[in-house]
Amino acid sequence: MRLPRAYKLSEIANFLGNDYLGNDNIEITGVNEIHNVEKGDLTFADNPKQHERALNSLANTIIINVKPFNENGKNLIFSENPFNDYNKFIKQFVIVQQSTSAISNSAKIGSNTIIQPNTFIGDNVVIGDNCIIHSNVSIYNNCEIGNNVIIHSNTVIGADAFYFKRTEKYLEKLQSCGKVIIKDFVEIGANCTIDRGVSSNTTINEGTKLDNLIQVGHDTIIGKNCMFASQVGIASGVTIEDDVILWGQVGIQKGITIGKGAVVLGQSGVPKSLEGDKTYFGSPAIEAREKMKEIAYLKQIPTLIKILTEKL
Amino acid sequence: MRLPRAYKLSEIANFLGNDYLGNDNIEITGVNEIHNVEKGDLTFADNPKQHERALNSLANTIIINVKPFNENGKNLIFSENPFNDYNKFIKQFVIVQQSTSAISNSAKIGSNTIIQPNTFIGDNVVIGDNCIIHSNVSIYNNCEIGNNVIIHSNTVIGADAFYFKRTEKYLEKLQSCGKVIIKDFVEIGANCTIDRGVSSNTTINEGTKLDNLIQVGHDTIIGKNCMFASQVGIASGVTIEDDVILWGQVGIQKGITIGKGAVVLGQSGVPKSLEGDKTYFGSPAIEAREKMKEIAYLKQIPTLIKILTEKL
Amino acid sequence: MRLPRAYKLSEIANFLGNDYLGNDNIEITGVNEIHNVEKGDLTFADNPKQHERALNSLANTIIINVKPFNENGKNLIFSENPFNDYNKFIKQFVIVQQSTSAISNSAKIGSNTIIQPNTFIGDNVVIGDNCIIHSNVSIYNNCEIGNNVIIHSNTVIGADAFYFKRTEKYLEKLQSCGKVIIKDFVEIGANCTIDRGVSSNTTINEGTKLDNLIQVGHDTIIGKNCMFASQVGIASGVTIEDDVILWGQVGIQKGITIGKGAVVLGQSGVPKSLEGDKTYFGSPAIEAREKMKEIAYLKQIPTLIKILTEKL
Repeated sequence: MRLPRAYKLSEIANFLGNDYLGNDNIEITGVNEIHNVEKGDLTFADNPKQHERALNSLANTIIINVKPFNENGKNLIFSENPFNDYNKFIKQFVIVQQSTSAISNSAKIGSNTIIQPNTFIGDNVVIGDNCIIHSNVSIYNNCEIGNNVIIHSNTVIGADAFYFKRTEKYLEKLQSCGKVIIKDFVEIGANCTIDRGVSSNTTINEGTKLDNLIQVGHDTIIGKNCMFASQVGIASGVTIEDDVILWGQVGIQKGITIGKGAVVLGQSGVPKSLEGDKTYFGSPAIEAREKMKEIAYLKQIPTLIKILTEKL
Repeated sequence: MRLPRAYKLSEIANFLGNDYLGNDNIEITGVNEIHNVEKGDLTFADNPKQHERALNSLANTIIINVKPFNENGKNLIFSENPFNDYNKFIKQFVIVQQSTSAISNSAKIGSNTIIQPNTFIGDNVVIGDNCIIHSNVSIYNNCEIGNNVIIHSNTVIGADAFYFKRTEKYLEKLQSCGKVIIKDFVEIGANCTIDRGVSSNTTINEGTKLDNLIQVGHDTIIGKNCMFASQVGIASGVTIEDDVILWGQVGIQKGITIGKGAVVLGQSGVPKSLEGDKTYFGSPAIEAREKMKEIAYLKQIPTLIKILTEKL
Repeated sequence: MRLPRAYKLSEIANFLGNDYLGNDNIEITGVNEIHNVEKGDLTFADNPKQHERALNSLANTIIINVKPFNENGKNLIFSENPFNDYNKFIKQFVIVQQSTSAISNSAKIGSNTIIQPNTFIGDNVVIGDNCIIHSNVSIYNNCEIGNNVIIHSNTVIGADAFYFKRTEKYLEKLQSCGKVIIKDFVEIGANCTIDRGVSSNTTINEGTKLDNLIQVGHDTIIGKNCMFASQVGIASGVTIEDDVILWGQVGIQKGITIGKGAVVLGQSGVPKSLEGDKTYFGSPAIEAREKMKEIAYLKQIPTLIKILTEKL
């Protein structure tokens, strides 16, 4: 996530009330978790594995709970709880407070776009031309919607990521500072939920069509001209390539990739990445023709038992 | 779908800017896809299989992309893209634009009916007596709701059908011109989605009760006194007869029939029609007692392997 | 459910227009179905099994359709249809009619709590301090929400229980007079549905986090610091102990208990109670490592068939 402006090491450390070490002339231009860092980013590291990764990453500044032997040229902000301090910075400087009018004054809405009654549009939302946003839709702040998009009633765009860290006493939330980006000619059904990214964005590309009651997790990227039937659930950080078809109630596990043109039949559960241009079925999902064979074989067990009982 | 008034061949062809052939005295009184046509209907046909079907159907007028050898007494409107021209006609003459007030002036609401705050009621919606429509419900235009109906919060009645045709470059939408009809004493839970019909209607008959987060697809017909538990998903064009019970998270595939009094246990997936008065389980669903045997047999495979290894 | 004040036998019987028998000095202080009765309660009994249970329960007053041989010291109200008369009493004296303003004047909202636009808050709702209630949320009357709670857009708290009794002609509804209680530091995602209790309450305890599109049935009790992923469905009367993790699209059957620290993997269906501190998978769910073995064994059937065909 890019920051609204460049920050200095001292500025962030002083806001957090923490000691720091490094070069105050380096510009800090973004924030990201360790697996997403880009040049100019601030990140955090609170265990030995993360320390090493952060010190060897593109990040220029690290909120950290140790003093490393070799800073590797990084700016360091010392914190007892890097996760909490990272969240504190994001809450203050990245997450804009939502407006209290139903359609924010800062929202930009294109020409010929229809916004039906009782819809909520948060701060800095951008909606293109020729869209229809139906009644009772909720669009959280900063989300971006292209041209010729249709969003049906009571769908929620941009709610917070479901992202918690279990500590000894409770579940700690990582603040979401990404957004949702919906490209041209996408249609989204009623009562869907498309979560915002944690540190990058959740994206639905051109021409993809979603039925009703569909979940799309944070930081997931969906290709062009996909079709997802009702009640599909897609976890976080998933990549779905172009022309993928998911039938009703399919579940896709986090972090995996579904290849171009893959078809997943109804109620399948997908625990690992799938090659494109094939059809899958089952929970866990395998190639549909293999699954059909399995189902047929299962029906032969009584015969096997009979043969064994008679012959042996 | 009946048209608001009768149209003439010349009138429709001129609106579309297309050539035509036939009898301008024949009244065109409805529109329908080929599998639903009734007497007096306009339909469209854009491939050889559809051409033949349309020319031998009850339709009196066909939007078509060839000149057939034998018109079979039909009116013909010649079009390079019959699907698009059919959509264009429906958009202009059948689909009423939605109002921008939360409760449309053209909606008719019966006596003793309570409409809770923040609910949207579109144009020409009819709601009977003694109903409770809870907060944040969205009812799209033209839908009809009987007497003594309860609809819980944030449910969406009448969103567009999920009906797309894959062309080489993108997914083309067929406009929905049917509606949703909900009969007396129906209760619908919170956050459900009941889609409107494409060319006929989606209907829920007397006394049926739906729990929360349920999907009912376009043109589906549900019988009387059915009970569907939470998160059930019913695809399009399904017929569910009276007294059917579907437990939680059941999925029903499109176009099939579930017989009177059938019971489908939780999480089952139903790919083909089911006889009434029986209990089913599994994905794909079979009779529950057969499924239970399958599950028991599956547990015997290790013993089979052991016997085979020892004896052979 | 406690009544707003104590009632007398004669008062309730006269309201219902029914004969009665008993001691008019006994205070009736609550209402409950037979399996939940507490001291001071009114209940109903309409079949021999219920008659016996009610006469031996803690209830002091029974709406009943027979004159028992031994009243066992209970107050009796004679009714042709005890279920209907019980409902009639509850509707009149327990269920407060909902207000018609979007935020009821009788709702109590704590300090530093943000209520986003288009949210509905019913009569006598209590919301604590430092909460965020996002746009288009619906909170039915009497529900109670603690401090530091976040509820995302379009979620519905407190809709009626899905609780019907099949009579010969139709499905009769039991009125819900319980409420939903959400404790401190709970976060609930978008488009969830948490139903109110029928005669006791639906409760979500401290620190539990729910993702989007989740169903929680009436009278269910959820422990502390649980995490439920998207599209989980939990039926009614379930007890989920602390620290339980349910992955996406899991279904939990009514009336069962999920032990402390249990983990249930995605799409599993749970038909009976589970011990804590173990991981489960499948529909029906068993221990995950057993399920994984089953899946592996299933793949060996073709080999078994081959061996049998060759050797026998």
